[in-house]
Amino acid sequence: MSGNTLGLLFTVTSFGESHGPAIGCVVDGCPPGLELQAADIQAELDRRKPGTSRHVTQRKEADEVEILSGVFEGKTTGTSIGLLIRNTDQRSQDYGKIAETFRPGHADYTYWHKYGIRDHRGGGRSSARETAVRVAAGAIAKKWLKERYGIVVRGYMSQLGEIPVPFACWEDVGQNPFFAPNAAVVPQLEQYLDDIRKARDSVGAKITVVAQNVPVGWGEPVYDRLDADIAYNMMNINAVKGVEIGAGFASVAQRGSQHCDELTPEGFVGNEAGGILGGISTGQDIVVNLAVKPTSSIAQERRSIDKAGNPVMMATTGRHDPCVGVRATPIAEAMLALTLIDHALRHRAQCADVSVSTPRIPGHIAK
Amino acid sequence: MSGNTLGLLFTVTSFGESHGPAIGCVVDGCPPGLELQAADIQAELDRRKPGTSRHVTQRKEADEVEILSGVFEGKTTGTSIGLLIRNTDQRSQDYGKIAETFRPGHADYTYWHKYGIRDHRGGGRSSARETAVRVAAGAIAKKWLKERYGIVVRGYMSQLGEIPVPFACWEDVGQNPFFAPNAAVVPQLEQYLDDIRKARDSVGAKITVVAQNVPVGWGEPVYDRLDADIAYNMMNINAVKGVEIGAGFASVAQRGSQHCDELTPEGFVGNEAGGILGGISTGQDIVVNLAVKPTSSIAQERRSIDKAGNPVMMATTGRHDPCVGVRATPIAEAMLALTLIDHALRHRAQCADVSVSTPRIPGHIAK
Amino acid sequence: MSGNTLGLLFTVTSFGESHGPAIGCVVDGCPPGLELQAADIQAELDRRKPGTSRHVTQRKEADEVEILSGVFEGKTTGTSIGLLIRNTDQRSQDYGKIAETFRPGHADYTYWHKYGIRDHRGGGRSSARETAVRVAAGAIAKKWLKERYGIVVRGYMSQLGEIPVPFACWEDVGQNPFFAPNAAVVPQLEQYLDDIRKARDSVGAKITVVAQNVPVGWGEPVYDRLDADIAYNMMNINAVKGVEIGAGFASVAQRGSQHCDELTPEGFVGNEAGGILGGISTGQDIVVNLAVKPTSSIAQERRSIDKAGNPVMMATTGRHDPCVGVRATPIAEAMLALTLIDHALRHRAQCADVSVSTPRIPGHIAK
Amino acid sequence: MSGNTLGLLFTVTSFGESHGPAIGCVVDGCPPGLELQAADIQAELDRRKPGTSRHVTQRKEADEVEILSGVFEGKTTGTSIGLLIRNTDQRSQDYGKIAETFRPGHADYTYWHKYGIRDHRGGGRSSARETAVRVAAGAIAKKWLKERYGIVVRGYMSQLGEIPVPFACWEDVGQNPFFAPNAAVVPQLEQYLDDIRKARDSVGAKITVVAQNVPVGWGEPVYDRLDADIAYNMMNINAVKGVEIGAGFASVAQRGSQHCDELTPEGFVGNEAGGILGGISTGQDIVVNLAVKPTSSIAQERRSIDKAGNPVMMATTGRHDPCVGVRATPIAEAMLALTLIDHALRHRAQCADVSVSTPRIPGHIAK
Repeated sequence: MSGNTLGLLFTVTSFGESHGPAIGCVVDGCPPGLELQAADIQAELDRRKPGTSRHVTQRKEADEVEILSGVFEGKTTGTSIGLLIRNTDQRSQDYGKIAETFRPGHADYTYWHKYGIRDHRGGGRSSARETAVRVAAGAIAKKWLKERYGIVVRGYMSQLGEIPVPFACWEDVGQNPFFAPNAAVVPQLEQYLDDIRKARDSVGAKITVVAQNVPVGWGEPVYDRLDADIAYNMMNINAVKGVEIGAGFASVAQRGSQHCDELTPEGFVGNEAGGILGGISTGQDIVVNLAVKPTSSIAQERRSIDKAGNPVMMATTGRHDPCVGVRATPIAEAMLALTLIDHALRHRAQCADVSVSTPRIPGHIAK
Repeated sequence: MSGNTLGLLFTVTSFGESHGPAIGCVVDGCPPGLELQAADIQAELDRRKPGTSRHVTQRKEADEVEILSGVFEGKTTGTSIGLLIRNTDQRSQDYGKIAETFRPGHADYTYWHKYGIRDHRGGGRSSARETAVRVAAGAIAKKWLKERYGIVVRGYMSQLGEIPVPFACWEDVGQNPFFAPNAAVVPQLEQYLDDIRKARDSVGAKITVVAQNVPVGWGEPVYDRLDADIAYNMMNINAVKGVEIGAGFASVAQRGSQHCDELTPEGFVGNEAGGILGGISTGQDIVVNLAVKPTSSIAQERRSIDKAGNPVMMATTGRHDPCVGVRATPIAEAMLALTLIDHALRHRAQCADVSVSTPRIPGHIAK
Repeated sequence: MSGNTLGLLFTVTSFGESHGPAIGCVVDGCPPGLELQAADIQAELDRRKPGTSRHVTQRKEADEVEILSGVFEGKTTGTSIGLLIRNTDQRSQDYGKIAETFRPGHADYTYWHKYGIRDHRGGGRSSARETAVRVAAGAIAKKWLKERYGIVVRGYMSQLGEIPVPFACWEDVGQNPFFAPNAAVVPQLEQYLDDIRKARDSVGAKITVVAQNVPVGWGEPVYDRLDADIAYNMMNINAVKGVEIGAGFASVAQRGSQHCDELTPEGFVGNEAGGILGGISTGQDIVVNLAVKPTSSIAQERRSIDKAGNPVMMATTGRHDPCVGVRATPIAEAMLALTLIDHALRHRAQCADVSVSTPRIPGHIAK
Repeated sequence: MSGNTLGLLFTVTSFGESHGPAIGCVVDGCPPGLELQAADIQAELDRRKPGTSRHVTQRKEADEVEILSGVFEGKTTGTSIGLLIRNTDQRSQDYGKIAETFRPGHADYTYWHKYGIRDHRGGGRSSARETAVRVAAGAIAKKWLKERYGIVVRGYMSQLGEIPVPFACWEDVGQNPFFAPNAAVVPQLEQYLDDIRKARDSVGAKITVVAQNVPVGWGEPVYDRLDADIAYNMMNINAVKGVEIGAGFASVAQRGSQHCDELTPEGFVGNEAGGILGGISTGQDIVVNLAVKPTSSIAQERRSIDKAGNPVMMATTGRHDPCVGVRATPIAEAMLALTLIDHALRHRAQCADVSVSTPRIPGHIAK
């Protein structure tokens, strides 16, 4: 495949450009019998939708999803699910001038050399607009994981630029446009991002995603490890430059006596592993961090070249997020859910008959 | 597949347990006509081999590779290449006591619950011993990339525990057991690791891998991005807990005006992107960092449980690396080379006819 | 995947039920730069369309295709191509009574037991309606094969029930509703099928598909053989029960001295092989035969059971083709074209650099 | 992949040339806990082994299999299973003269043009010797299908050249070198094949393979249909030119009223479908026919060309089967078993939770 299908057993095959008639996908492998309606998907899409606060792009997309197949009388049938989202707010005229030049930090130069042709309007296929279909597909995955295994997948912004956001509670996450898990920090984040925007600049962010209640035993042992597939899925999100599982880069300076989740009958002592050992889930929380780079589109003049190789100066005007990380949380959740459902199905394929009398110990307890 | 095949067009299908008769793999998709002999592979295996310094495990494995197929009269034929490495130093008796208990930080507990059975000897399938076959397969990938495109893939240790290793020069890397790119730091590393070992502890490390001369245009646009496949491959290495491309987690606190590789006719100004934009190579150096956690096997008593769920105390004796990161460099290089060759072949499949008159600008110049 | 994606490098991911809002697919892996517009696809769809003669179902479907992505300013961009066909003539009420019973010869019983739920309206996902998307995707494949390699893929009906249709000329094929390559036989076919229809019965057919100008060297050696992938693709067509390459089942009674395409500098002597040796194309015509079973839906009363397992009698009324083979030719062409383009891309991936001085001998000459 | 891996969830990745040091494969996806030893595999290999009667090649291969991994204390562990068969009877000198010419009917010409290099010794990778690894892998599949579901996969020769072999009983199959299911016909087959051999000619055969006790509901609905995957697997066997499911090509001349397995509470009435409807198993016997072409290697002079394109005359001497179909039965059984286990695992992945109260009706009853 040419990079538009995600997953092995639960697959998402995506299409669509930012300024074409529509984006959408085919979700294949969903188990039959899941209650599903467009509203289930719409709820997740609305969390990611642009234009909902001053901190994100002012592009107004309805992002209204239509289920074209695979659902009958309110339940999935086991056949492929076609999802369609029409594009409605396409101001292609804004993008005319980028047809002949390459925006720094964007995929313009690389697409051009790879394909020899590109739909430049709004980034075309490389636009973050495509992530809407992941959120839509992820909504199905999330629902199945929840209903079948009680798994909860959710995320939050753990850092905005230089400002760390200490986790306070899950309830706060949905109460602010940043997905910040700490209401007290929100005013600071708002001020900070307003300043960035006024400086015609942008900034990066760190997102944390957590999956709870994942059973022990999901994942593959050597390649296709659960953490490897998570890293793959996360790095497939536009602007992501780093992925950590559990202790992540902090483990470089740790000792073995420290990075060690001891096992006790009462539970694991600590979760340095982030819920995965040897590529397989431990039953603890799966904890993932992402580094999201600053939005490449800023309204400052920068050097670039045109298609003929001549030097040009360009500022990327238009309607852009000052921090693409602000809307990244629902996308990261979707990608984690998609990884998990794929491994849930894989696990059933090979290990459906496995029965072990050893008790499964609970998630981590205090050290 | 159940997690033992890597790649789409250039595939490595791996088998073998630490204490079984042999490990090996099938390499499929290698273009025909590449000059190849066992010695080419052996040279890379010897770089990774245990028992070569006091800083790594004292297990003595010859790691002698046999080419079973796919090569005729010194050249690859385009058919699948069978590689076999017999295990020779298997002291299974050392591992008898871990049959009934789960070593903290290892895959014992997760394998047991996944499969209901495991070859516990030396970690069985989860042993880092399996990485030898990746190095063997990677040697083929490296050779082809070098000969066909002039691509050089190489790596080094950039941090050992708390000690950063500033890059001095590539020549130093092969002159010390740490793959440290700075001869001046080596005595400090030796002392540091001796102390760790004496404390019956272990420590993490950071590895940096670089690919030079990769053409612009390799990678896929949405999923199967080049950076996503790199992250996947790297996170598939035992003990890796984090992956960064280019600026990585530093990009969280960067501004868009800073994380921005401007384009000029003379070249890119900076390489924050780490050689990849929109999932596709830019032609700049591809730069990847890995976080390797401390060796989980340490000779200190720790809490665990046995198969019946009872609490036990256990120290993992045996012959272990005090820092698994020390031998990780050749493995990381192999994984990067395997990612690249797969995308090289993909690129030829879809874009063999593409011709672009736009000049390809060179790698980064000073800011 | 769960059986809705076809191909490895040029993939078709299909969705849609007979009586849902739409059918469609995502075509991925199409090389960039191919001139493509909806009319190119529509022309092939119109060849397969129902309701065009009295010999096929009277369902009236416009089968109008919309290109949703992957084409920019009249050329493919290398990104995924979304195709959408809205269903317009859905008389669901006709199908109410089959909700509770299983039509003999149809997929009703098997879908029901596999999924525990099914969209029974018009066969739902198992309807031959889905083949429209293959024809649409195949149109793209055909166009690329033609323009890039001069390959011509076309087919004809070689037998209708007991009546063989001797090949006269390609020109005749498009001049009658049967795709019969022999105008003289058409009146006999019309009478024959009228009689079948009046008898409220149906009948089988044999379809022959030929690809000309395929270069030598496409295909894989052991699995994924070109003939194996053709057999797979053809047997994926509804109602196909047999596939032959070249001499096919006639080879059972042949001698080696007879089933033998000798090589001469002027060309192959005969084409018993049907253009494929050792899974790889020889450069001769690729010749494939399909057996299409009689339409399972007939207006005669037959025994069946209902969902509770009780015996019932049922006749399948509605608008059905008396011979599904009549419309099978464009579908079979599409499936052959899709196989070929996938192997064209695979060949470029692994063997793009191969150069052989041995002359390529032309297609077969008279024995 | 480049055509050396079979299957999606239960995969066989094969390597090895006829005259290289060894052949073998990696079997991945086998569920854990299956009792398995080398003798289980050896028994199937011995059924296919050359040199066991005057009707097959006199090459003497021990075909002794070694299990290299994936089995611990007599049970599969769920990890990949490495299988190795050393080549022992390699008379490469016999093949020197075919290095420069292309044997008619063989893969010599096509491999040469595809790869630009080939191991010509004994056909190299294209040799039927490779089928030994399929039989080995198939033995594992057979054993699991038998123990887990009671499925029996077995086959027989149903025609040798012009001589049909009417099915008498399964017991006869193992009592003669032809796998003929009818002891009374064996003397005729022996005489017939002796005559063919004396005429320095070869002949084709038809093989029938049957799987009993397959549950209803295995297979995929649109692509990856169970019959499509069977056709694919069978056509991947050397020398196979045709595949039929159930009525096969006979269905061309059938009426819908005739090709129709009515359903009754007592069972299906007839099995024209060959156990598969809509790509999914019905619970009836799965019945497959293969056409095997005559051995291409015969000791008669035939026309060919050499690498320079010059005309040559050549007779293929050496040790060849006068009818490759004679040894094809165990291979075809293996390929059917491999198809079934893959779909067994797929079914568990997606439909493990499906529960249907509708009774499953038994296999076919007399019409």
